[in-house]
Amino acid sequence: MKIKAFYLLLIISMSLYSCSNRQSDNENVLGERPEWAIVVHGGAGNITHESIPPEKEQEYMDKLKEAIVAGANILDNGGSSLDAVETTIKILEDCPLFNAGKGAVFSADGVNEMDASIMDGSNLNAGAVASVTNIKHPISAARKVMEKSKHVMLVKEGAEIFAEEQGIEIVDPSYFYTEKRWHSLQKAKEREADKKDDKTKKSGTVGCVALDKNENLAAGTSTGGMTNKKYGRVGDSPVIGAGTYANNKSCGISATGHGEYFIRNVVAYDISARMVYGGETLEEAGNNVINKVLKEQNGSGGIIALDKNGNVSMPFNTTGMFRGWMKAGGEAEVLIFKD
Amino acid sequence: MKIKAFYLLLIISMSLYSCSNRQSDNENVLGERPEWAIVVHGGAGNITHESIPPEKEQEYMDKLKEAIVAGANILDNGGSSLDAVETTIKILEDCPLFNAGKGAVFSADGVNEMDASIMDGSNLNAGAVASVTNIKHPISAARKVMEKSKHVMLVKEGAEIFAEEQGIEIVDPSYFYTEKRWHSLQKAKEREADKKDDKTKKSGTVGCVALDKNENLAAGTSTGGMTNKKYGRVGDSPVIGAGTYANNKSCGISATGHGEYFIRNVVAYDISARMVYGGETLEEAGNNVINKVLKEQNGSGGIIALDKNGNVSMPFNTTGMFRGWMKAGGEAEVLIFKD
Repeated sequence: MKIKAFYLLLIISMSLYSCSNRQSDNENVLGERPEWAIVVHGGAGNITHESIPPEKEQEYMDKLKEAIVAGANILDNGGSSLDAVETTIKILEDCPLFNAGKGAVFSADGVNEMDASIMDGSNLNAGAVASVTNIKHPISAARKVMEKSKHVMLVKEGAEIFAEEQGIEIVDPSYFYTEKRWHSLQKAKEREADKKDDKTKKSGTVGCVALDKNENLAAGTSTGGMTNKKYGRVGDSPVIGAGTYANNKSCGISATGHGEYFIRNVVAYDISARMVYGGETLEEAGNNVINKVLKEQNGSGGIIALDKNGNVSMPFNTTGMFRGWMKAGGEAEVLIFKD
Repeated sequence: MKIKAFYLLLIISMSLYSCSNRQSDNENVLGERPEWAIVVHGGAGNITHESIPPEKEQEYMDKLKEAIVAGANILDNGGSSLDAVETTIKILEDCPLFNAGKGAVFSADGVNEMDASIMDGSNLNAGAVASVTNIKHPISAARKVMEKSKHVMLVKEGAEIFAEEQGIEIVDPSYFYTEKRWHSLQKAKEREADKKDDKTKKSGTVGCVALDKNENLAAGTSTGGMTNKKYGRVGDSPVIGAGTYANNKSCGISATGHGEYFIRNVVAYDISARMVYGGETLEEAGNNVINKVLKEQNGSGGIIALDKNGNVSMPFNTTGMFRGWMKAGGEAEVLIFKD
């Protein structure tokens, strides 16, 4: 009997132990933890082989690769994940292909109102700017908010004044004009007048998550928001927990898609919470949020994610997402379509 | 041996079952689920018997009770939790005692910039306004954003134009002037000039969570933010997941305190996530977030919460929080201090 009781207690203990440690499942890394890793997106949406001509496809691929390699070089040289995220996103903000910085979409008033945020997974510090119109690199302004103010979120003129005081490059709002986006606004207004839904819109938000040699995660997101947006609408990109989240204990996330759904579902933080409290892996958590929770609500979009072990996940529920990644010792990989 | 193996399997099964069902612990309600319930706060902070004269204490108690009873009457008559939350918060917005609506604190520019948000736990719809200066009841504007726009968050003039178009009462910004708050701004500026920390500040944000007879949860929060705030600073109150969250599957939350910490820690949603994924009760989740996670970071404040079973929790890590609650068949209860 004593031996039987011993076995029973042993089994109970083992079951309970495996239960209380479900959290550590995601540490079962396939392969070695890379010395560093970086993952990037340039927006998710109705992106198909038909909607992008082959030469344009190459342009997107080249620019994504350039941005990834720039961040990767910083990481490889021992730089911080924050520096990698900021540098990578600045390259995408400078490129008119993406809906962030130069190339941001126009609001209904014909203005480019941009949002950005950044988060440091080592200490949960975060910074965000929303509805700014004259900051060349909104991601750099977000970083200044994080590092040089007591605040997390600054909006409109106040954010612009702060950025200027901090030496962030200010430009004339006309800098952000691109013919393509102006044309998109006119088309959106026509569809609105005809009471037609905008089915062709591509988000084009950009984001980056990086893990550095010191095992620090950082995440950032930058966007021009929605074409033809009204009334000072702010989406998920500058909302910590919705569009951006980073925590060394779990993962770093940057989101892109129909922002309202990402706010309501607290998407970026939900992925971290599922890992920490629910024992889901990064892959499981990301898939559950993007392909179950959001899909059931018709909330379109995707996320890029890196966990603390350098695992990459990039789920999206649209036909495409501009995305890519690179890990120490590997090559930059870039993808656009689902298939 | 067969019997022994049977016992072993039984024990393993029971252990695993209890593990996979940790989530339902919070359904172990003490007592009956009330037909409806409401919980209210008027801000947490350095609130002591010394800092509030007895006659002022009574004023706070009376106003909190009036607000609770107004919401409770709606719930008792079969009204929705959203109506109860909006009505209750409007009463507190109208009262100069609290830092919301009339009585909102002044920004560094001498302006009252108010934020509010509301969330419907039955469908996760949400609405928020930030940095508005002429909307008499920001909580009502937030509700219109939720119900009459495709968006969740509108800021500044855009939010004001939307609110006016929706028939929300617009007032001259001078309506929000109170001598007490103006004096607080002058004192804050003096302390700033002397490089002294502001140790006396009380938040005074208001919030409400309600559970109606249809078992729908709703939560709302309204604030003037921080005295002497600069650069268009937005705190946690209009950030869904940080200052406000409601989900019929778990709980409704309204937060008050040092907003930046509440954003970084995604406080309102974290409490829900701990319940849903981690199997914590409302009481455990609220306490863990407010008295452990936030306290370790020196993030001061508190939350009010109602779970889907009508359990009330009101943890705070400051010396006081204006708070109260009422359940079907009970009386309105109001408290201010910790002891």
